[in-house]
Amino acid sequence: MFWSKSFIPTLKENPQEAESISHKLLLRAGLVRMLMAGVYSYLPLGLKVLENIQEIIREEMNACGANELLLPALQPLELWQKTGRDKDLGQVMFGFKDRRGRSICLGPTHEEAITDLVKSQVSSYRQLPLVLYQIQTKFRDEIRPRFGLIRCCEFIMKDAYSFDQDEAGLDKNYQAMFGAYKNIFLRLGLKILITEADSGVMGGKVSHEFMVPSQDGEDIVLSCPSCSIARTFKEEESQECPKCKAKMDKLNCIEVGHIFKLGTKYSQAMQANFSDAGGKLKPIIMGCYGIGVSRLVSAVIEQNNDSEGIIWPAEVAPFDVIILPLDVTDAAIMNSAKDIYRQVIDTGKEALLDDRDERAGIKFKDADLLGIPLQVIIGRNAVKDNVVEIKLRASKEKIICPKEQALEKIKSLTSGSALR
Amino acid sequence: MFWSKSFIPTLKENPQEAESISHKLLLRAGLVRMLMAGVYSYLPLGLKVLENIQEIIREEMNACGANELLLPALQPLELWQKTGRDKDLGQVMFGFKDRRGRSICLGPTHEEAITDLVKSQVSSYRQLPLVLYQIQTKFRDEIRPRFGLIRCCEFIMKDAYSFDQDEAGLDKNYQAMFGAYKNIFLRLGLKILITEADSGVMGGKVSHEFMVPSQDGEDIVLSCPSCSIARTFKEEESQECPKCKAKMDKLNCIEVGHIFKLGTKYSQAMQANFSDAGGKLKPIIMGCYGIGVSRLVSAVIEQNNDSEGIIWPAEVAPFDVIILPLDVTDAAIMNSAKDIYRQVIDTGKEALLDDRDERAGIKFKDADLLGIPLQVIIGRNAVKDNVVEIKLRASKEKIICPKEQALEKIKSLTSGSALR
Repeated sequence: MFWSKSFIPTLKENPQEAESISHKLLLRAGLVRMLMAGVYSYLPLGLKVLENIQEIIREEMNACGANELLLPALQPLELWQKTGRDKDLGQVMFGFKDRRGRSICLGPTHEEAITDLVKSQVSSYRQLPLVLYQIQTKFRDEIRPRFGLIRCCEFIMKDAYSFDQDEAGLDKNYQAMFGAYKNIFLRLGLKILITEADSGVMGGKVSHEFMVPSQDGEDIVLSCPSCSIARTFKEEESQECPKCKAKMDKLNCIEVGHIFKLGTKYSQAMQANFSDAGGKLKPIIMGCYGIGVSRLVSAVIEQNNDSEGIIWPAEVAPFDVIILPLDVTDAAIMNSAKDIYRQVIDTGKEALLDDRDERAGIKFKDADLLGIPLQVIIGRNAVKDNVVEIKLRASKEKIICPKEQALEKIKSLTSGSALR
Repeated sequence: MFWSKSFIPTLKENPQEAESISHKLLLRAGLVRMLMAGVYSYLPLGLKVLENIQEIIREEMNACGANELLLPALQPLELWQKTGRDKDLGQVMFGFKDRRGRSICLGPTHEEAITDLVKSQVSSYRQLPLVLYQIQTKFRDEIRPRFGLIRCCEFIMKDAYSFDQDEAGLDKNYQAMFGAYKNIFLRLGLKILITEADSGVMGGKVSHEFMVPSQDGEDIVLSCPSCSIARTFKEEESQECPKCKAKMDKLNCIEVGHIFKLGTKYSQAMQANFSDAGGKLKPIIMGCYGIGVSRLVSAVIEQNNDSEGIIWPAEVAPFDVIILPLDVTDAAIMNSAKDIYRQVIDTGKEALLDDRDERAGIKFKDADLLGIPLQVIIGRNAVKDNVVEIKLRASKEKIICPKEQALEKIKSLTSGSALR
């Protein structure tokens, strides 16, 4: 991608409305723009990051046998009346009547819709276990949307649902999801805390939250420094580790994942039953597994930045390499830059060529702001000496190498662990 | 993918509610299920088809320099009041107030939102031309949703927007999009008619519609059999070719694409201006380019089926190959099937292995219904003689070949034009 033909509106100054580090960097690096409070447009770079995150989630979901589908945003309100959650979630549900008088809501979550679907298609134990998931837009009427993509009225979630004939099956699926979640957050470059948590309006007894420590997080987690137990903080709670009695640390966190053993709450309310091997009718045993996909863009930035800008983990970065010709009016420099650009593209890596007619200082600043892992800098001296300068965004390390060896160097630096 | 671990609920009978061929096949092949009138869930196979269509569209959009982004579904109503289209589109817009009293609508289209975005980021001729697109869910309060995915209240569109400083720039982008559209529909296996059409509520003067002839289409197109001119039929219209005076054919069609030269309708109403090279402020000149993505799933089926089921064009098919072991209790048959499955997967092709404990007749019928281009059939005799039978879904041709040569045969049959 050539910068001049793309749409990457970076900002020199911190926007006034931005409340958290990630919110500032989302706006300054041209990843998103606000349409109205709590509602954002993803610009090309923001969308690329979002898609990289989705791809990691897809790979890990598919690896544990989950099937991807896509449920609608529009839902009949009567579906929610069956479980009584029209009342529990009433305040955050956007609702309206259509021209034909139907009461419709915009799905803030999809337990009812998926249970309704599975009920109509599954009747026998031979069709179980079944694990389904989607990556889809949710809508919530937040009274106070804030922090950019962290608390929005329109946001993207991955929600998975498991369907089993017994508790042993649920345990197995729950453990598989637990493992997949750990892989996902590791690949996203996130340090997380895992807490046993309240199930709240979701029902069920066992649940775990996946929390990203961050100074602007809205949740508070108690974490034991010596035995690494973590739990959601409630006001009345003592601050002593239940296991080793050490004083626990109180950390602000962003909730990025939540998994629940739902049991039969939804299947019983909606009569989603199956015949077991003996022909007996039983309610299907369910689990649900959520990840805040768009919120993760913010969470990754919160934990991966410095004073100059974003430092994307390799698998999340919108491009692998940014190429900086320092004078676009100099044909030798531009030819050299385009040469390397083509070579990188041909290896299947993604590259951004900053072909804007801007001063070197602006290009350096924007490259650091964007946070692409590798910068390849091509100036007049480099062309004269037939070398290029490669800068690692995270460590700021600079490597000078002959132009002929640049591709091999870039390949080794972008393959696997070097950048993480 | 193993069928037993997937979610492909095929139906033996035609569902009563289905009105058109594609609607019947969408339901019978387990591609979609209705949540309420005009609102569908995409099951795993339907989602795969949808994603294949999206991938083709993305490739062709990117090839003409368009940048992908993603705009929100929630939009402030005041944005629509600026162009007066809150009145033009009022009836089909879903609207409501949120908890804070904001008037919000669900975007039936995105001209206002994109113009608002570009207005805030573009101020100089040096930032033009710019072409942006998204693949996104739209919402319309259809009074009479019908024909499965053809007329829905929630549906997926690709909408692209071009921004230019002069008419010559618009012409160039319009022609590039016109070419990209022809490529897209060709790759989708569609025969199309291209008509010069009314611009309707979109504004602007020049527009072309891309129409798929189909007996259940809701639009009527006059097509000249001798000089291949086509035009949208209006009631008062004569049926004589304006060019060669031949009698024109009257064809039912599904509209799958529509491109418009908008001119300055939106930029003037919303003050989206730029400074030209001489420093003069001018309204940006726009074009918009839509494709009905989810509707295309139906349109492709309408033109690609026979009495047995769907016949997917190669690039759209949810899998390249379906493997049918005719007796899953026979270890030799299953080993042979899994062998070929792994070999196919290793070449990067996608395969579905029908490992259900069902009779051969049911497997044959479902394979034809699903419409996957190649069927690899492994029965007892085949194992005994060390051969496999390969059936081409479209032509029904059958090829017997030694098992050792099966992979090479499959590779040559799935590479390029053989199946189209």
